[in-house]
Amino acid sequence: MLIHIGYELIFDVPAPVSMLLMLYTHPEQAHVLQKPQRLITEPKVKVDDFKDWFGNRAARLVAPAGKFRIYYDNVAADSGLKEATIHGARLHPVDELPKDILKYLLASRYCEVDRMLDTAWGLFGHTPATWQRVQAVMDWVHTNVTFGYEFARPTKTAYDVFVERKGVCRDFMHMAITLLRALNIPARYATGYLGDIGVPPAPFPMDFSAWFEVYLGHRWYTLDARHNEPRIGRVLQARGRDACDVALTTSFGTARLEKFTVWTEEVKP
Amino acid sequence: MLIHIGYELIFDVPAPVSMLLMLYTHPEQAHVLQKPQRLITEPKVKVDDFKDWFGNRAARLVAPAGKFRIYYDNVAADSGLKEATIHGARLHPVDELPKDILKYLLASRYCEVDRMLDTAWGLFGHTPATWQRVQAVMDWVHTNVTFGYEFARPTKTAYDVFVERKGVCRDFMHMAITLLRALNIPARYATGYLGDIGVPPAPFPMDFSAWFEVYLGHRWYTLDARHNEPRIGRVLQARGRDACDVALTTSFGTARLEKFTVWTEEVKP
Amino acid sequence: MLIHIGYELIFDVPAPVSMLLMLYTHPEQAHVLQKPQRLITEPKVKVDDFKDWFGNRAARLVAPAGKFRIYYDNVAADSGLKEATIHGARLHPVDELPKDILKYLLASRYCEVDRMLDTAWGLFGHTPATWQRVQAVMDWVHTNVTFGYEFARPTKTAYDVFVERKGVCRDFMHMAITLLRALNIPARYATGYLGDIGVPPAPFPMDFSAWFEVYLGHRWYTLDARHNEPRIGRVLQARGRDACDVALTTSFGTARLEKFTVWTEEVKP
Amino acid sequence: MLIHIGYELIFDVPAPVSMLLMLYTHPEQAHVLQKPQRLITEPKVKVDDFKDWFGNRAARLVAPAGKFRIYYDNVAADSGLKEATIHGARLHPVDELPKDILKYLLASRYCEVDRMLDTAWGLFGHTPATWQRVQAVMDWVHTNVTFGYEFARPTKTAYDVFVERKGVCRDFMHMAITLLRALNIPARYATGYLGDIGVPPAPFPMDFSAWFEVYLGHRWYTLDARHNEPRIGRVLQARGRDACDVALTTSFGTARLEKFTVWTEEVKP
Repeated sequence: MLIHIGYELIFDVPAPVSMLLMLYTHPEQAHVLQKPQRLITEPKVKVDDFKDWFGNRAARLVAPAGKFRIYYDNVAADSGLKEATIHGARLHPVDELPKDILKYLLASRYCEVDRMLDTAWGLFGHTPATWQRVQAVMDWVHTNVTFGYEFARPTKTAYDVFVERKGVCRDFMHMAITLLRALNIPARYATGYLGDIGVPPAPFPMDFSAWFEVYLGHRWYTLDARHNEPRIGRVLQARGRDACDVALTTSFGTARLEKFTVWTEEVKP
Repeated sequence: MLIHIGYELIFDVPAPVSMLLMLYTHPEQAHVLQKPQRLITEPKVKVDDFKDWFGNRAARLVAPAGKFRIYYDNVAADSGLKEATIHGARLHPVDELPKDILKYLLASRYCEVDRMLDTAWGLFGHTPATWQRVQAVMDWVHTNVTFGYEFARPTKTAYDVFVERKGVCRDFMHMAITLLRALNIPARYATGYLGDIGVPPAPFPMDFSAWFEVYLGHRWYTLDARHNEPRIGRVLQARGRDACDVALTTSFGTARLEKFTVWTEEVKP
Repeated sequence: MLIHIGYELIFDVPAPVSMLLMLYTHPEQAHVLQKPQRLITEPKVKVDDFKDWFGNRAARLVAPAGKFRIYYDNVAADSGLKEATIHGARLHPVDELPKDILKYLLASRYCEVDRMLDTAWGLFGHTPATWQRVQAVMDWVHTNVTFGYEFARPTKTAYDVFVERKGVCRDFMHMAITLLRALNIPARYATGYLGDIGVPPAPFPMDFSAWFEVYLGHRWYTLDARHNEPRIGRVLQARGRDACDVALTTSFGTARLEKFTVWTEEVKP
Repeated sequence: MLIHIGYELIFDVPAPVSMLLMLYTHPEQAHVLQKPQRLITEPKVKVDDFKDWFGNRAARLVAPAGKFRIYYDNVAADSGLKEATIHGARLHPVDELPKDILKYLLASRYCEVDRMLDTAWGLFGHTPATWQRVQAVMDWVHTNVTFGYEFARPTKTAYDVFVERKGVCRDFMHMAITLLRALNIPARYATGYLGDIGVPPAPFPMDFSAWFEVYLGHRWYTLDARHNEPRIGRVLQARGRDACDVALTTSFGTARLEKFTVWTEEVKP
C-alpha cells in the first residue's frame, strides 16, 4: 500500500525569527519513502538539517519577516497490515532493560512521574505484572479522559489531565506515558501521520496525530491511548520523552500560525 | 592543588530494588583523578556501569533488602585558580548555536520555559543582548530568592520558586536556567563537589552542590546563582537539563536514605 | 506481505568467551515485527542488550565452554514493493550535508578512502556530479568485480578488492562505499536478510546479505552493488561504516562456528 | 599553572573547498580555559560548529580560493602535576566493560586489530593479566619503534609500523593501541598540545602531539608510547578510534598547507 503524506504551514512573522522544525518523516522510515525528503519554503531560505539526540531529523532556519510557508509532500510504502499487539509480550524488570532506555522511565516536562507515583501504584498495583498492566493503563486512560479540541492548551501536563480528565490526543498520551513510567515501564511519545485507513472517516479536518510507544519483549510497540485499537498506516515523524521534545515548530520569538493543512491518505491504484 | 572527594550513603531497603546512580566523578574529569573510579557497595553487588546520553557515567544495580551502603573516595588534581568569568563573552543568536546545544533551550521537568517566557522578557528584555543579560539574570535570582534547607522539596519547579522566592541551591539554578532559556540562552544543570576553598567555612554539614553552565563565546561557562561569584575547586559529577536528569540516586521502588556524608577538601601538603 | 526471518548458529567453545552480537533485527524495524525480539541461547545465558553508537541493537554475552547455540525467529511486515531508486535524487555538496553524516565520508577499517582518492577521481571525475555518478560507481563495481564464495577472507579490504577484482557481497559493497566516499558522497554499510522474492531462487544456501546506503536528496537510499537492481523484502539488521562495525559475532577469544543457517522467505497466505 | 596554547595554519587553496576541522580545545576542557573558544579565519568565513560522535568539537567551513589562514589562541589552567599512572589499576574482563567502550576494542582504519591478534598474544600472552600487560605493551613499542619525522606518511597503519619499526608519535600510538585492543584492552587515540614542561626542551619546532588512552579501573588513563613517562600539561583537542577520526583538517578537495605553527608553553607569573 502507498500512502500520500504531507502538509502546508503558513506563518505570519513580524520580525526575522529562528525556528526549530520537527517536520521531516523520521529517518528510520527513509527506506519506505518513494521520494527524496525535502522541506520547501517560500520565500526560499537555508534549511539547516540535523539529527537530534532522539534520532529525529530536525531542521533549523531563520524565517524572514512577512508570510512564511513550509510545504512537504511524499509517498510512503506500507504493508497495509494492522500494527502488532502487545498481547503476551514480556514486561521487563528494570534491571533487565537496555540502559539507553532508562531515560524513558524518568519524569519530563509534561510527564510529572514524580507526582504520580502513588496514584499509579494505587490504581494499577493490583494488576498482573505483565503486558496486561500496560493494557489496564490504556483502558483506564481511554475510558476516563474525554476527547475534545476545545480542551487543548500548550502548557497542559499529565497531572493537569489527571485532574481535569479532558484533552486532545497529546494529553491522552502524556497521561498514559506518565502512569506507565511511574510503574517502571518505559514509554515514549511519538508524532506523525495517521489517516482513516480501515476506520470510518473522522469528522474533523486532518491533523498530525500523537501516539506513544512502550518497551516490552525487547522491542518498542506502538500504542494509542485515544483510539485504543491497532491501526493501519501510521507514518512516524518524531519521538521524544514527551511533546516538548517533538514540537512541530519551536519559534525563538514570535511567529503566528495562520494556516495549517495536513494530508495522509491511501494512494488508490 | 589536590582535593579529597567522596561520600558515603546508607539506605534501608525493605525489598530488593533497582537503583540508578549518578555517583561517579564525571568522565571528563577522569584525567585529573589520582585513583581508579570505583563505587564500593556493602553488601557487594554487581555495579553495572554506563554512559548516559548526557555523557555522564551512571550505574545501575539491584540493592538487596536490608542496610545498603555505597561508598566512594578519590583525589582530584585542580589548578587552584578561580573559574573563568563570562565577562565579555559573546552571546550567540540562536541560528549560530551548535545544534547539539539547542536542546538546552527547551523546557524540561523542573524548568517550565513555556510558562516563563513573558516574565523573562518582561524582567530582562531591556538588558543589553550580551553577557550582561546573563549577569542580570544571575543577580536577580541571587537577590530575589532566599536560601534555606527547610524550603527544599523534591517536586519543586522553577515556576514554584518564582512564586515562593525560597529554595535550596538546586532551586536557585532551576530559576536561573529557566529564565535564561526563555531568553534563548542555552543553560544546563550540573552537580558535584564544592568545598570551602578560598571562602569562609559554611555553617552546615557538607553536601553535594548544584551549579549550572551557560553557553557563551562557543564554550560552556560555570555559574552559580546561589553564590554568584567565581569559586575554586568544583569537581563535576553529572550534567543534564535539570535535576531530574542527574538525581544522585533514583530508586524504582522503596529505599530510605538513612545516612548521607560527603567530603571535599584540599589535601594539605 | 509477511516475511519469515531467523537463523540458527552453533559454536564450539573451548573455554568461556565474551561475545559481541549484532543479531537483532534493527530497532527501526521494530514496528514491522509481528513478535517480540528475542535471542534464544542454549545453554541459557544472560543476554546483555544495548544500542550501539550507530543505533544498532547489539548484545553481549559470555558463551560457556562446549556447544553454544543462538537462535532467532520472527515475522516482518513489508509493503511488497521494490525499493525506491535514486533516479533524479539530489547529490549534496559537502557543505550542505547534515553534520552527523560527515563520518560516512571518512576512511574506515575496510574502506581505505585515503588510498583510493586518485583512482576514484580518475575513474569517475568525468561523470555528471549528480545521482548518475553514484550509478556509474555501482555499474563499475558490478561489472568489474567477480562474485565467488571462494574469494572471501576476513581481512580483505576495498583496496584488496580493487587489486584482485574478486569477492563476496561484502567486498562489492566495500569497493562501492570506498569509491563513493572518495568522491565526497556519504555511504554506509548494511547487513540483514534478503530472500529471493521476485527473483529466481539463488543456487546457494541462504546467508545474511550485505548491501549499502547512500545519502542523496536528504535521505538514505538502499543500494546493492552486487545485484545492481531494486529488490523486495530486505530486513535490516545493522549498519556501520563497514563490515568491521557490524560483524554478526565478534569473539574476544576462541569460538568456532560449526553450523550456520539463515531463513528469509515470504509467508504464503 | 596557566598554559598558553594556540596555532596558526595557512593554506593555499586553488578552488573553494569544504574542510572539516578538529581544531578546538576539547569541550571537556572548556572549564579550564580562560577565554572563549574561537577559530579566527582570514578571510572571514562562516565557521559551522558541531560536536562529533566522539564528543569532540568539530567545525566545517568552505575555504575560499587563495591564501586561507586559521588562527586560535587561548590559556588553559592546569594543576601542574604529573598525570596519574596506571600502577595497580584493575584490568577489566570484556564482560565487565561499560558497553559504550566496546567500540574501542574493534579494528579501525589505522589499527588492524584483526591482523595482529596472533602477534599480540604471542608477544604478550605470557604477561600477567593486569595493568602490567599494558605496561609491557608500552615498553615494547617504546623500545622497538624508532622515532623520526622522516618516517611519517599519511596512509601508514599499525601493521606497517610493525613491519617497518619506524615512525612518528602517531605511529607509536597506533602500534600500542592495536596491540592493546588485540589483547581485549580498550584503547583510543588522542591529540592535543604537549609542551616541554618539566622536561628538557625538544630539538624540533613545536607540533601537535599524539597520545592515547587506556581503560583500566573504570576510567581512562593517559599514556604515551613514544615518551613512556608521565608528563605535565597536556591539553586535549580530540579523541577517536585512531588518527583518521581526529585529523586536524580534512579537505574535500585540494588545500595545500603552507605554514603551520603551534605554541604551548607555561605562562610565567
